[in-house]
Formats: sequence, structure tokens, C-alpha cells
Amino acid sequence: MSPDVLQELIAGWQRGDVEWSTVDARLRAAFAATVPAEDVLVDLDRDHRCGFPEVVFGVGKSSAAIVAVFAAQVTAGQNSLATRVSPEQAEAVCQAFPDAQSNSMARTVSLMRTPPKLQGRVVVVTAGTSDRPVAEEVIETARWMGCETDLVIDVGVAGPHRLIAQRERLQAGNAVVVVAGMEGALPSVVAGWVSVPVIAVPTSVGYGANLGGFAALLSMLNSCAANVAVVNIDAGFKGGYLAAMIARQSRL
Amino acid sequence: MSPDVLQELIAGWQRGDVEWSTVDARLRAAFAATVPAEDVLVDLDRDHRCGFPEVVFGVGKSSAAIVAVFAAQVTAGQNSLATRVSPEQAEAVCQAFPDAQSNSMARTVSLMRTPPKLQGRVVVVTAGTSDRPVAEEVIETARWMGCETDLVIDVGVAGPHRLIAQRERLQAGNAVVVVAGMEGALPSVVAGWVSVPVIAVPTSVGYGANLGGFAALLSMLNSCAANVAVVNIDAGFKGGYLAAMIARQSRL
Amino acid sequence: MSPDVLQELIAGWQRGDVEWSTVDARLRAAFAATVPAEDVLVDLDRDHRCGFPEVVFGVGKSSAAIVAVFAAQVTAGQNSLATRVSPEQAEAVCQAFPDAQSNSMARTVSLMRTPPKLQGRVVVVTAGTSDRPVAEEVIETARWMGCETDLVIDVGVAGPHRLIAQRERLQAGNAVVVVAGMEGALPSVVAGWVSVPVIAVPTSVGYGANLGGFAALLSMLNSCAANVAVVNIDAGFKGGYLAAMIARQSRL
Amino acid sequence: MSPDVLQELIAGWQRGDVEWSTVDARLRAAFAATVPAEDVLVDLDRDHRCGFPEVVFGVGKSSAAIVAVFAAQVTAGQNSLATRVSPEQAEAVCQAFPDAQSNSMARTVSLMRTPPKLQGRVVVVTAGTSDRPVAEEVIETARWMGCETDLVIDVGVAGPHRLIAQRERLQAGNAVVVVAGMEGALPSVVAGWVSVPVIAVPTSVGYGANLGGFAALLSMLNSCAANVAVVNIDAGFKGGYLAAMIARQSRL
Amino acid sequence: MSPDVLQELIAGWQRGDVEWSTVDARLRAAFAATVPAEDVLVDLDRDHRCGFPEVVFGVGKSSAAIVAVFAAQVTAGQNSLATRVSPEQAEAVCQAFPDAQSNSMARTVSLMRTPPKLQGRVVVVTAGTSDRPVAEEVIETARWMGCETDLVIDVGVAGPHRLIAQRERLQAGNAVVVVAGMEGALPSVVAGWVSVPVIAVPTSVGYGANLGGFAALLSMLNSCAANVAVVNIDAGFKGGYLAAMIARQSRL
Amino acid sequence: MSPDVLQELIAGWQRGDVEWSTVDARLRAAFAATVPAEDVLVDLDRDHRCGFPEVVFGVGKSSAAIVAVFAAQVTAGQNSLATRVSPEQAEAVCQAFPDAQSNSMARTVSLMRTPPKLQGRVVVVTAGTSDRPVAEEVIETARWMGCETDLVIDVGVAGPHRLIAQRERLQAGNAVVVVAGMEGALPSVVAGWVSVPVIAVPTSVGYGANLGGFAALLSMLNSCAANVAVVNIDAGFKGGYLAAMIARQSRL
Amino acid sequence: MSPDVLQELIAGWQRGDVEWSTVDARLRAAFAATVPAEDVLVDLDRDHRCGFPEVVFGVGKSSAAIVAVFAAQVTAGQNSLATRVSPEQAEAVCQAFPDAQSNSMARTVSLMRTPPKLQGRVVVVTAGTSDRPVAEEVIETARWMGCETDLVIDVGVAGPHRLIAQRERLQAGNAVVVVAGMEGALPSVVAGWVSVPVIAVPTSVGYGANLGGFAALLSMLNSCAANVAVVNIDAGFKGGYLAAMIARQSRL
Amino acid sequence: MSPDVLQELIAGWQRGDVEWSTVDARLRAAFAATVPAEDVLVDLDRDHRCGFPEVVFGVGKSSAAIVAVFAAQVTAGQNSLATRVSPEQAEAVCQAFPDAQSNSMARTVSLMRTPPKLQGRVVVVTAGTSDRPVAEEVIETARWMGCETDLVIDVGVAGPHRLIAQRERLQAGNAVVVVAGMEGALPSVVAGWVSVPVIAVPTSVGYGANLGGFAALLSMLNSCAANVAVVNIDAGFKGGYLAAMIARQSRL
Repeated sequence: MSPDVLQELIAGWQRGDVEWSTVDARLRAAFAATVPAEDVLVDLDRDHRCGFPEVVFGVGKSSAAIVAVFAAQVTAGQNSLATRVSPEQAEAVCQAFPDAQSNSMARTVSLMRTPPKLQGRVVVVTAGTSDRPVAEEVIETARWMGCETDLVIDVGVAGPHRLIAQRERLQAGNAVVVVAGMEGALPSVVAGWVSVPVIAVPTSVGYGANLGGFAALLSMLNSCAANVAVVNIDAGFKGGYLAAMIARQSRL
Repeated sequence: MSPDVLQELIAGWQRGDVEWSTVDARLRAAFAATVPAEDVLVDLDRDHRCGFPEVVFGVGKSSAAIVAVFAAQVTAGQNSLATRVSPEQAEAVCQAFPDAQSNSMARTVSLMRTPPKLQGRVVVVTAGTSDRPVAEEVIETARWMGCETDLVIDVGVAGPHRLIAQRERLQAGNAVVVVAGMEGALPSVVAGWVSVPVIAVPTSVGYGANLGGFAALLSMLNSCAANVAVVNIDAGFKGGYLAAMIARQSRL
Repeated sequence: MSPDVLQELIAGWQRGDVEWSTVDARLRAAFAATVPAEDVLVDLDRDHRCGFPEVVFGVGKSSAAIVAVFAAQVTAGQNSLATRVSPEQAEAVCQAFPDAQSNSMARTVSLMRTPPKLQGRVVVVTAGTSDRPVAEEVIETARWMGCETDLVIDVGVAGPHRLIAQRERLQAGNAVVVVAGMEGALPSVVAGWVSVPVIAVPTSVGYGANLGGFAALLSMLNSCAANVAVVNIDAGFKGGYLAAMIARQSRL
Repeated sequence: MSPDVLQELIAGWQRGDVEWSTVDARLRAAFAATVPAEDVLVDLDRDHRCGFPEVVFGVGKSSAAIVAVFAAQVTAGQNSLATRVSPEQAEAVCQAFPDAQSNSMARTVSLMRTPPKLQGRVVVVTAGTSDRPVAEEVIETARWMGCETDLVIDVGVAGPHRLIAQRERLQAGNAVVVVAGMEGALPSVVAGWVSVPVIAVPTSVGYGANLGGFAALLSMLNSCAANVAVVNIDAGFKGGYLAAMIARQSRL
Repeated sequence: MSPDVLQELIAGWQRGDVEWSTVDARLRAAFAATVPAEDVLVDLDRDHRCGFPEVVFGVGKSSAAIVAVFAAQVTAGQNSLATRVSPEQAEAVCQAFPDAQSNSMARTVSLMRTPPKLQGRVVVVTAGTSDRPVAEEVIETARWMGCETDLVIDVGVAGPHRLIAQRERLQAGNAVVVVAGMEGALPSVVAGWVSVPVIAVPTSVGYGANLGGFAALLSMLNSCAANVAVVNIDAGFKGGYLAAMIARQSRL
Repeated sequence: MSPDVLQELIAGWQRGDVEWSTVDARLRAAFAATVPAEDVLVDLDRDHRCGFPEVVFGVGKSSAAIVAVFAAQVTAGQNSLATRVSPEQAEAVCQAFPDAQSNSMARTVSLMRTPPKLQGRVVVVTAGTSDRPVAEEVIETARWMGCETDLVIDVGVAGPHRLIAQRERLQAGNAVVVVAGMEGALPSVVAGWVSVPVIAVPTSVGYGANLGGFAALLSMLNSCAANVAVVNIDAGFKGGYLAAMIARQSRL
Repeated sequence: MSPDVLQELIAGWQRGDVEWSTVDARLRAAFAATVPAEDVLVDLDRDHRCGFPEVVFGVGKSSAAIVAVFAAQVTAGQNSLATRVSPEQAEAVCQAFPDAQSNSMARTVSLMRTPPKLQGRVVVVTAGTSDRPVAEEVIETARWMGCETDLVIDVGVAGPHRLIAQRERLQAGNAVVVVAGMEGALPSVVAGWVSVPVIAVPTSVGYGANLGGFAALLSMLNSCAANVAVVNIDAGFKGGYLAAMIARQSRL
Repeated sequence: MSPDVLQELIAGWQRGDVEWSTVDARLRAAFAATVPAEDVLVDLDRDHRCGFPEVVFGVGKSSAAIVAVFAAQVTAGQNSLATRVSPEQAEAVCQAFPDAQSNSMARTVSLMRTPPKLQGRVVVVTAGTSDRPVAEEVIETARWMGCETDLVIDVGVAGPHRLIAQRERLQAGNAVVVVAGMEGALPSVVAGWVSVPVIAVPTSVGYGANLGGFAALLSMLNSCAANVAVVNIDAGFKGGYLAAMIARQSRL
């Protein structure tokens, strides 16, 4: 729905020429296609407003609902991404759309019939094996948004020579996402080697006094580096989304 | 110190041609000019590595030390910024450098003899009077880094028409910084109106169950909007630094 | 038991005409009918004192005990409601009372042989699919107490145009219940559009730094809107009870 | 500004007949009178939208700013209330408006040139001397909104006969506000004696494990009584506002 | 081992007449009989020092170990009690000692071949069905220590007439144990009706902001009544132990 | 007021022979003498119900109010105790009653014109200099209630020989109060040497991770000794009150 | 890789004689042998830098990956240790290396083809059965590093004579590790008997207010003894590692 | 008091030859010299048992008491150290003992008439100006115990080249103490460069979500490096004590 059409519609209602029920129906059709199964609404206008289609958060939704959202987006010529999907949900999507791609470690499933033009580069850094699933979610999100990605692993703070060896790869990104659990010190250290924004994603990896990732979260919020911002614990999607948004608008 | 000089120096030490004490002295001179008063070291190489000179965190430093850092930066042809300065610290700097500029609400003092080329626009949003000092720190930081800034005030979530009225100003930024205390809901609401990164700065404004800003911090970390990242409570400097870094590298 | 009878009984005991055991027995008969199965006592006088019969909290009770409470209330001519019931508990009640109504999403089962006169209107607002079960508990409670209800879904704070579109429905209530997890910002935003009390129900929906719903709870307690009060996390029953109490006594 | 005028204005802008700057200026004049001193904006339209004028939160504002807000409201024919004011702020208001009334215990100052029609009754209950200031803030707020108030003191849970003696006064309210610190048990006990909504206001009165009022807050949120909702710690204003809103719309 | 024997043994070692290994062996035999199965040591001297035999905490022990401890105590002419036992552990004990008594709700199993002389009375108060298992653990402990017990149920704070009706039973105890979850207000209310020590046992019954019983714990620690002390969450054994210790030494 | 008079009064009201205002006035006169200054009420019936007169909590009360309470108690032939009094409050009481006794370290002032018969012995144990004020409050309270007291100092857990040297003094009490800050380990250690109830009073002495006494509080609640109950942080009055209550009813 | 080789390699790259890809490959080969299965990297240079080979943290790794790490270490002539292994992981290692040793209580599996020279003695102290698994992890780690170990059990703080009886064994260590849950008081008490460093390992053993081991952790951090340092909750590996490091470098 | 004398004394008491009062008096004289002023006891035997004299914690003690402890230690031929002293306390000690040495930044005062033989080297590392006072307390403590010390400053994690430049100094210590606030990441990074124990001292330096040093504390407890143990927040004395204890017993 173009701004002009919207303005005329609202003006009509304001002048009394148009009933509210009519306005409601047209807005609903334009902005929020009702997907019949499971009463989920999908915001098809999001692509226009924000530059990317709505992303489905899989937890608590039925497989049928997710498939229905994907179908509505396909109809509208949009790409689709669902995060935190179970194996059953992923399989249901792949059966409905054989060209969908599932990443079981990242717990994502995506459908990209018209891939975005590649623009910008997101570098993802992680220290150990256990943080890998969150890092994969970062990567899947950034790729779906049209960024190149590079995953640098095994660069824990207690083995400093490893990080130094990867310095060039870190500096090649327009934005860096650091995924770390335990003491969450890696973002501060990485931030000292780069001159672009660092998005820190704390993970719930650890035990005891890590408080389900809260220790890493607090550590990252208190980083002595000026170029570190933080998202929620295990929020790989958010980390990837922000980094890709920054990278795509970068002229570097 | 150019990379070639550095490499030759280190190679010399590695071949045994140069004593470690010599290397140490030259690195110290190049990277960390010792400011005699108060034993503070200033990292004059930061400008080269990160694109911006080192910023002084005023808390716990003597006025003499801050003046000494500014003097060293002036000598090196760099700009200066100090945050969280007391009135006494600010006055000492302004007496030493009459062209320094002090913002008592932001608690900053800066010296910009060679202003950076203007590039990028940071929009700062805040709800009420009490969050203003943190917002001012955001603005001073972003300006010092060479960004245009726009401050939008009085757009609390409970008065929605006000925010809508400012929509155009919000959308004109390459990055938006939202400064909010109490329930910290404003970043989520603002994020729904823009398609650029939103940096959320929780403030300690509030009472009772706000837990010194922790309620706002948690709220922002749990934002349902994908384009919101968070910095520490009252961290106006960090919010401004990240937003300016994003805005300056933006091609929008 | 009428006040007169009660006063005479107590006065008799105070004068020494009546044994304590007699008083105890009569009070027990009047106020607390002993349900033999499972040693649960049901307070049949609650309806007289508070305007509504006692509501059964299903957790930790046997199906037989819940059926017994319903039976005692039926005998006393009262309506029945049980919350947080398991599918097994609900089925047991429905087998014993074929006219009972079970809502599996709300986890409630109710029996209304003499429905209350309809009075007042409670509007329930929620943002996403996951908060739906708590919202259903709100609705079942409010309906059982004799209020009209209206459920407004999909009005998250990050999609502001949706909320605006529903403004009229919000303003039609005598009380509004807002059910929200994650950052819990919705009550503040809704409160800006209505002039009636808003009861905020935080939910445990979210992950990481949401701390099992505590982030949303704190956010709601710190709301900058004056007309927001809060109940416990996931406490749909309480939210519905208070809103219905307010709506029923409203002359609007 | 009437709805018709507003609609025409916006429609004009949407049709391109009116510049945004014009719209902005007129909306600003109508909705938010700029008070020159201290850059505070006052929302004069609030009275129309919500039924009560905007209330000033005194913390962090200059005396001049508060006086300026009162003056703007007087000009608009509205009543004024400021909470959490210091003695200096209160005195400044009383000097500017000799008919203003200051309550130093409640930390409020108000100006009521056209008192609202009396409607509804709010009963305020508190246990001890230390909770009195918060209770006074409740009362000042409820009175300013046009409710009768009754303050019941010295009814701590550990002295049960006192509460019983006051039962009739409790039951005479359309809403009850219970102000309590320490273990915060009083709302649950009071709620058992009344059939109207109870608004619980936890206070920071206590020491050690009371955690600045958090112990009382948690206790109230977990109340086993169905008719208890909670506001922020020490939030006398909110408690009074909600209770008065309920009481004024009550037909009891 | 009598004090004289002990003193001579230690003096011998101090004079060098006795090897440490000998001392160790004799102390071990006297104070800590090694139970072969599972390497558990049982302190048979506890009965002499503290007035009661050692009580077995069942969690993390094998059934064989518990049976072995009971056997050692039987041999020494002592009574036995195990708490927090699983059904399997209880059954193993009952098979080994057919006169053992198991209480599945309390999760205890005991063996009392020489019951202590009855002395003192412990009254246990609880509000609802869910707190019952903890209350049963209180009772089993107090009975095992030789106290009469009385269990008063269904006296929640929100139904004040019920508590008043039980006043006489409360006042008949030498110590009162109040078991309560949710807001934990019951101990304060009960304490106002009695003049003996009240031991408060918070339970983990509740949801949301009850924080696994922490809300009740904090409430009880902040009780405005002077005669309330608190034990750990769900610590029925401790509550019963302390109350029985007080009751047995009481001359009332 | 004797029970008979009370019963007749209430019966009269129940029969309608007596106005509520009359009942209220007579109850007020009997149970709660209104002290004119500062609107404080004093419960003169407490002595009859609980065995001890009401104790004044000094925080937030004027000196005049405390003096007035003492005067009312003197008139009624009761003893007086005020805790947490400032030097000014203590001096005001001592000027009004020259035979009052003030303990500046304990922050108490008391007046005992008819000392209670000595009965029972409370032993108070503390580790270091900083916990002394809380220990003094314990002692003043226990003495005022008529118990002998013994203060054992300098028995920190890290110097075990000191505690052993004091074993006999510990075992001479009918109840032991252990006052400890920092890690709060002393109650567990003391409890192993005695066979009477141990009341643990955590103090806010310490720094860093002691969290204002919370570390000691948690430690005490988790004590592996069965005979330890806990009161609030710094709650010397409560610790002394409970111990004295236990000691006075002890037949040991 | 010797320092000389490393320096020449880097110097070559700095002079431009060597490509970065070559440097990277050689460093990778020298410092981090890529284990093909599961993409785990093993740092074979750790033995040279830190004195001990890398230890595998089993959680989240496949059995194949652990076997592969062991195989790489065997090839390099190094010993192997894996902690927190599941029974399946342990069995897979033992099948691959029949001379590997598994400790199911400690959840470790180790392979020591060239055992280190025995040096130093680590004493491990614990109070009860439930802390045993963590103590076993301490012992396995210290033994693998070449220390003698001694395990002292059943020395809870509430049974002080037991600890005294073991004094000589405690004093025979070069470092003492104290493993304790519940109130965590044991390290303070043990520290008073020895003059060597005490490493405190809090465990998650307990319930209710122990907060998953946090109560013990806080207690240990606040120890009044000067010679106590703390590691993470349940961190038996860390406790053993530090103690063995201290013991091996001790000349006592 | 020699062990022989002690054993004879106790044996005498055990045989009944010596009264307890005599034993008590002699032990008191030997182990705990009563310093008359302020009732502080000083443990003169500590030097014998633990290798170092007792250290005075200045908080809450009078200047006279500290002087008295120093005097008693001087008489006994022992050295003295007081920590956390105010300027007034330090001056009083220096007036009484002109050869005492005060460090106002470290808040210590010491008297070393017979300096210990130098043995071992403690390296102290810190990142910024604000952590300096805690680092000074570490140094004063380690020196007083007879260790060489080296203070490495300005090595924050975000400026990695600085730390690398100081590697040799780090590796020269027998133990390393890392003092850090904010995110507390420095200990993990330092631990990767050394093969000796690292004692981490979190400081309360920072703001907002640093929670008074708790963020740094949690970060250090969760360190991924195996050779890091932690002490309380701002506990410079403990950090220095443990490191010196390790360094003095080191044969490296």
C-alpha cells in the first residue's frame, strides 16, 4: 500500500466518507494478512517499512502456522526466515517448500526465492564448541539479510596468540559479532583490534556462578571498550540482525 | 609510528640487534606518552588505530592529570574529550585551554582545534527532564566525533501522539540513541518507526523497583524489536560513541 | 448463616450458655463445608462475604477433591471455577458434571448453573501467540464473574499502527487487562490511550535476561503511566478477577 | 482542540495543503504548551484525554519550572498537583500562588481553583508511623481527584483485634489502598475483610533483609487474596491515582 | 566413651605414650562407627552430646547406606529417623526393619524401639493443601523427639475468621511452627495470638514472583512480630527440631 | 479490661444496646492509650496478652513521642524499652525520667521501675569488635525481659582454640544468640557444642560480596546444624526477645 | 616450535619474504593441531607454555571428538585428561585406549602413558557424602598433574571434634582444597588450622535458600581467614588445578 | 608458649591437678594479650601458628586501640600491619611509632622493626588509575610478608599490545595478583601468559550494571583459564596475603 493510498483512505475516514470497518479491512489486507491456521497474523508490510520481511519466532507455534506464514510471504514475493524451530517444525517447512534450507545447529529454516543483493560483511567470533549454535544463528540471519559472513572460532581470551593470528580476518568486517559464554571477556579483547561496531551476544554456556549467562551479560555491559553494545542472552538472531543492518548501510 | 618502523624495530629485537629496553622505550614514546603529573599514561596511537583519540574518563583523576592529557594530545595534533568531569575539573581545563568547551549538564569538556569533517547524523530521543544529562553526554560525544545530532525530547510512551508527531525527525538519522529510565519501554516503541540501528541507554532515573536502572536495562535487553542493542546504565558516552561510529560509516 | 444468627451464637458462647465445641461445629457447617475426599475444606460463605464463590486452585489437588468442591457448591446453589487444572482434572470434572465447560488453553473448568447478570466490560490485550494461555485465563475468569470480554491480539509495541487501529475497542472497556512478556512495555503504551484502570499481567514468555518474567514485572511496576497496577507473573486469574471486580462496580 | 479541527488539520497535511511546520506548531500549541523556564513541556490536553490534568513529578525539576507549569494550567483553567517536592519547591509554589496548599509530610503541593465534584470514597490503611508519608501522598492525590478519603492507622497484622475493630470503616470504601513496609502482609489480611479492589503500596520502611522495600513488594505480589494489585515501592501517588479512578467510576 | 577415658587417651598421646594411629582408631570406634556399605560414617555419640541420635538426610545416599545406619543405631540402642527419603529408600528400610514406620507425604521413615518420654506440645499451622508435605515433616520430627503435636490447617490470612476460631488450639502449644508459602504472611498473624516462640518455615509453594520460596522467606524475616524466627525454605525437619527442643525444655 | 467486661461490651453491641462509637471509645481506652504528642498509639494491653509491654522502635519517631509512650507505661505500672534510639532521643528520655538507663552502643534506653523476677540465662556470642553494637542490643533486650546474660567475645571461627576455651560458658545458657557478620559461619560452629536452641543474628559487618549482610544471612539459613534459627540482619532486638522467651519458659 | 623458529617465521612475514597464508599454516600446525572429527582444535603447545597439556571439558562434545583429542596428544607424547564426561564418553575413550582410567564418580577419564614425577601434596577436605563427586574431580586432577593427594571426609563444622582429630593430616599438605555446600563454613574453619593456601570449592549441595550453591560461594568469599581463595561452584577441576600448581612449586 | 608447656598444662587440667581458671588465665596470657584500651584482644600466638603476626582491620576501631595492638606486638618482638585505616588512625600510629610507615593510597600503616628475609616475588597487574588503591594494598601486604613486588599498570584488555609488551615482567613472578574492576576480564587474559597461580581481586570500580563490583567478581569466577582463583571485592589485603604465601613457599 503506497503512502498516497493510505493517506487518502484515512482522510476519507476522517471526513466520514469511509466506514471504519472498511478502513480496518483494507489496512488488514495491506498490513497484516490473516493466516487462517492457528490465528497467527503475518505483517506483510514489514518488508516495505523496515527493509526486511517479518521473521518467525518458532517457539510456541504449530508447524502448520509456520508453513502458513511462509506461504503468505511466498505469495507476496517475500523471503522467509524462522528461528528457534524444532526438528519437526523444520521438517514440515521443508516438506511444504522443497527449496527451503534448514540448519539444525542454528535451529533455523529459511526460504530465499529472490536472494537480496550481497552487501557488507559480518564477522562472527566465538571461543569454543559450546557457543557454536548461537554463532550459527547469527550467520544464518546475516546471510538471509544479504551479507557475507566469516566465522572465526577457537579464539578464547586465555590463548592470546590465537586471536592475534586472526586479526586480519576480524578487521575485514563492517561489523563484528562476538558470541561468548563463561566470563564473557572476548568482546572487550576483540574490540581492541577493530575500528567497527562490536555486537556482543552473551551465551548461557557455563555452570555455577555464570547464572544462566548473566555473568557474561554483565561483563559485556561493563566492557571498558567504547565500541561494544550488547543483546539478550543467546540472542543470536538479534546479534546477526543488528550487525547485518550496520554492515548493509556501511560505505566502508 | 608507521607499521614499517614498528616491524623493523621488532625484527631487530628478534634478531638480537636491539635491546628490549630500547624497544620498550621507543614503543612507550610512540604508543603511550607518559604524562608526568599523576602517573597517567595517554595512548596517542589510539587515533591511528581506532580513528578517534583516547577519551578521558574523569572520575578519580586529578584536574592536573586531565589537563596534562589534553596538553599531550594538543601537542600531537589531536582533539580531546573528557567525560564525567566535575565542575572543578572542567574549570581547570578551561583555564588551561581558553578555547575548550564545557557542558555542565553533560559533565563533559572538549577541545577541538581541528574539527572532524561532518559525516552522518545521530538522533537522540528521550522522554523526560531527568534523562537529559545522559542525553547531553550522548550528543557531546557524537558531535566530537563529527556527526550532526538532533535531540527529540518529551516523547514518553504513555503519550503516543507526541512520538508520532516526531516520526520524520527520527527517520532522518543513520542511527538512533534512545535514553530512558523507569520502565525503559521507549527503545522498543521507537524501533518500530525506524529502519536503522537503535542504541538503547538505560538510565538510573526512577525509584523503588527500578533497582538503580536495572529494570530499564532488563526491559531493553528483552525488547521485542530486532534492531535494538543496549549499553550500560547511564552510559551516554558509549551510546554516543557507537551511534556515531555507525553513522560515520553509513552511506545512507 | 445470617449476621443475627452468628451474633446470637457468639454471644451465647460469651455468656457461657454454649460450649465452644458447639460453636465450632455450627461455624464449620456454615462457613466451611468439609469435603470428605482429600481433606479439602470449601468456604461456602465466601459468596456472601465477597460476592463470588471460592475458586479452586488446581495445582496439587486430586481430581476427586476438585469434583467434591464443585459438588458442594452445586448443592449450595453456587457457581464453580477451577484454574490451573490439568487435562485429567478437567476431564474428571466434565464427566461428573456434563454441563461443565473446559478451556484447555486457559487450563480452566467452570460450572455456571445460575449465570450472573451481565454487567461491565473487560478488554484484554496481548501482543503475541505465546501470551495467549494467560489471556484466556483472564477471559474465563472475567466471564465467570459476569462481565463481557473482548480480546485484542497482535498489538506489540514495535508495530504501533496496529495498536492505533484498535483504539476504539480499548476505550470500550471499564477496565483493561494487558498481558505481556518479554520487555513488558505494552501496559504503558495502552495506558496512554485509555482513561480507565489498567491491570498489567507479566508473563514468563521470553528467554535469557527475562528472568522467568521478572524483567516484564519490573518494567510494569516502573511504568510512567499513572493508571497501571500489577499482579504476579502469569497470574491471569488475578488479572481477570480484579478487572471484573472494577468493571462490575462501574457506572460508566 | 476538538477532534474535528484535528482531523481537518491532519487531512490538510496529508493532502499537501498544509506544511508540516504549521501542523507541528498548531499541535504544539494545542497539546503541549511550552513553558519557557527550564524547557519543560506541559501537556494541557491531558485533562481532556484522561479526565485529569498532568501531574508534576518534582524530582530533578527547578522551582521555576514547577511554578511555570502551574501557571500554564491556571491559564488553561485546570487544577495542579506536584508530588515529591522539596520544601524549597513547595515554598516557591506557595509564594507564587498564595491559595496553593502544601503538605510537607506527603511532599505535595496543589492548587485547586475549581475543585472537582466529590464522588467516591478511598480508604487508606497503614500499620505504623513510618509508612505515614506515603499514606499522605495517597490521600492528597485522591482528594485532588475529587474523592472522599479516610485514613485508618495502627492496624498491624500482629495486633489482629485492632483491624477487626476498624472493619466497618474499611468496608465503606469503593477502593482500599494499603500502605505497608516490612513484611508487607497487611494487604492480604485487609483483602479478606472487603469486597472491593485493594491497591497495595509497598514502602521502603524496614532494614536488613527488607531490601529497600523489595521484601514487601514480593509479598504483596504473591498475596493469596484475589483482589490485590500492586504498584511500585513508595508509589503513594500511583496508589492514590488508581484507587480514585476506581472509586470515581463506581456506582456502589 | 566417658570423659575420663577420653582425657586419659588424649593425655597419653600428648605425653607420647600412645601413637596417633591408636588414638585415631579408638576415637573412630567410640565416636564414629564406620558403616561398611557406601562409606557413610554414623556419629553414635551424638545422642550423648545433643540429646538425640543423628538423623539421616536421605538425598544422595543409597538405600543400603540408610539401612546400615539404622542397623548401627539399633545395635547401639538408639532410635532412628531418615528425612527426604524416596519411596525406594523407605521400602528398603521397612523391609529390613518391619517395625519401622514410613510417612510417604512427609518423606520420612523412622524406627522407635524405645520411644522417648512424652514432654511438651508443638502446634503446627498451615494454610493450604500444598504446604502439607512440609508440615508432615515437622510433625514426624517433633513426634520422634517425644513431643505431642497438633496440626491446624486451612487458616489462610485472607480468611481471618478461620484463624480466630482456632485460637485456643494455637495457645495450647509450647512452641508453634507456621508453614506457609506464597506471601508468607501467616507467621506474623499467628504470632499476634500467642505468647510462645514461633518458628516460621517458608515453603516453595507458589509461582512467578515467589522465586522458589524466597518471597515467603523474606516476608518472614521482616515480620513485625518480635517472636518469629525463621529456618530454610521447605526445611520442615529444622522447624520441627527447633520447636521440639524448645517444647521439651519448657516448664509451661 | 477483663475478658468478662470485654465480652459484655461486645455482646451489648451485637444486641444493639451499645453504639459502635461507644465500643470503639472504650476499646481504645482499654487497649490503645492515645499519646497526644505525635499521634502515636501505645498498646497498654500488650503486657497482659504477651507477657511483656510494647517495645518502642525509635526510628522515625520524635523524642516527644517516645517520652509520651514511656509516661503512659509508667502510669500503667509497666516497664519501658526503646530500641534504635538516637543520642538525642536517649537524652530526652533520660531527662524526663532520671532513673532511665541508656546504652549508647546498643542504641537502647529503658526504664524498669518494677524489674521482672530473674529467670533463665541467655548466652550471647560474637566474633569481633564490629558486631558488638548488635550484641549489646541483644543483651539489653534479654535483661529487660528478666534474663541473666553472658557475653562471649573474640571467638571467630578461624581461631578455633578460642571457642573451645569458652565451651563451658556456652553450655550454661538456656538459649544461645550468635551475632556474626562476614561469612556468618559462627552459629553452625557454636551449635555443635550446645544442646539448646541457637538464634543466629546476621550483621551487616563486612564489605564487597557480603551484600549488606545477605551473605551471612544465607549462610545461617543453610546451616548444617539442626538447632539454628535465624532473624533479620542486625536484628539484635529480635534475637534477644526470642532467646529470652525461650530461656524464661525453660525448666533446665 | 622453538622461539627461534617462531621469531624467524614472523620476521620473514614482516620483511615480506613469507606469505601470511604460509605463516598461518605453520602456526596452525605447531600450535593447534586440527582434529578432523567434530571440528575441535587441540592446543598441543599448551604443555610447553603452561607445563601441562590441554584438558578437555567434556560437556557438549561428541565421544569421537574426545577420542580424537586424546589420540593427537598421544601422538605428541602428551598425557590426557577429560572432565565432566558422560558414561558414554568415558566408555568410548576406554575402548579406544584400553589403558585409560575412568572415574565415574569424578566424571573424569585420563590417559597417563608418561606419568609426571611425583611432587607436592594436596589435601582435600569435605564434609558429607553429597560433596564427594566434586572432591573426586579435585583428586583426579591433582593426581594427573603429579601430586600426592589425601582425602579427609566427614569433618563438618557442627562436629568440631572430628576436624581436630584430623589436624595432622591437614597440616601435611602444601595446599588444601576444601569442598563444601550448604553454608560453606568449612574453609574458614580449616584455614585456622593450617599455614598454607586454602582453595575453597563451593558446591551446589543443599536446598531452598542455598540458591544453587551461591550461599556457599558468598560465605567463602567473605571468609574472615586471610588464606582462603575461591573458585566457581562445583569447579572441582579448577580447585585441583590451582592446588596442584601451588603444591608442585612448593619447597616445603 | 611452647607445645610442651601447653601439653603439660592441659594434661594437668585433665588429671585434675590444675583448675580451669588457671588454665584459662595462662592461655589468655599466652595466646591473647588483652589490650586495655577499647577491649580489643590481640592474638600474639598467631605468628607462631601461621607464620605471620595478626593483622589489624582498622574499620570500626579507635586509634587508641590500634596503637595498643602495635605496642603489644612491639613488646613481643613482632612486626605490625593495619589495613583500611583512616588518615587519623594512620597519623596516631605514626605519632606513637615514628618509624612506622603509612601509605595513604593503600590505607595501610606498618611497623617492621625486624623485616622478614626477602623470599619470592609477587607481580601485581592493574588496568587503570581507579584500581590503584586496591593494588597498593596488595603491594603493602606482600612486602610486609617479605616478598619482592612489581606493579604493572595500564594493561587494559582493550589495548592488547600493552599487555604483550609487559609479558616478561608477568612471567618473573611466583604468583600474580590481577586487580580489575568494570568487566573483570584482565585475569583471564593475564592467566594465558603465565604458568603460576593468578589471584584475581575484583574492584568496585565502574557504574551502572557493575553492581558494586559484582559483575567483575562473577566474570573472574567464570574465567575459562584454569589457574585463576578469586577473593572478595576490593580485598587487596587477601590478594596480597595469598600471593605472598604462595611466593614464599615457592622453590621456583
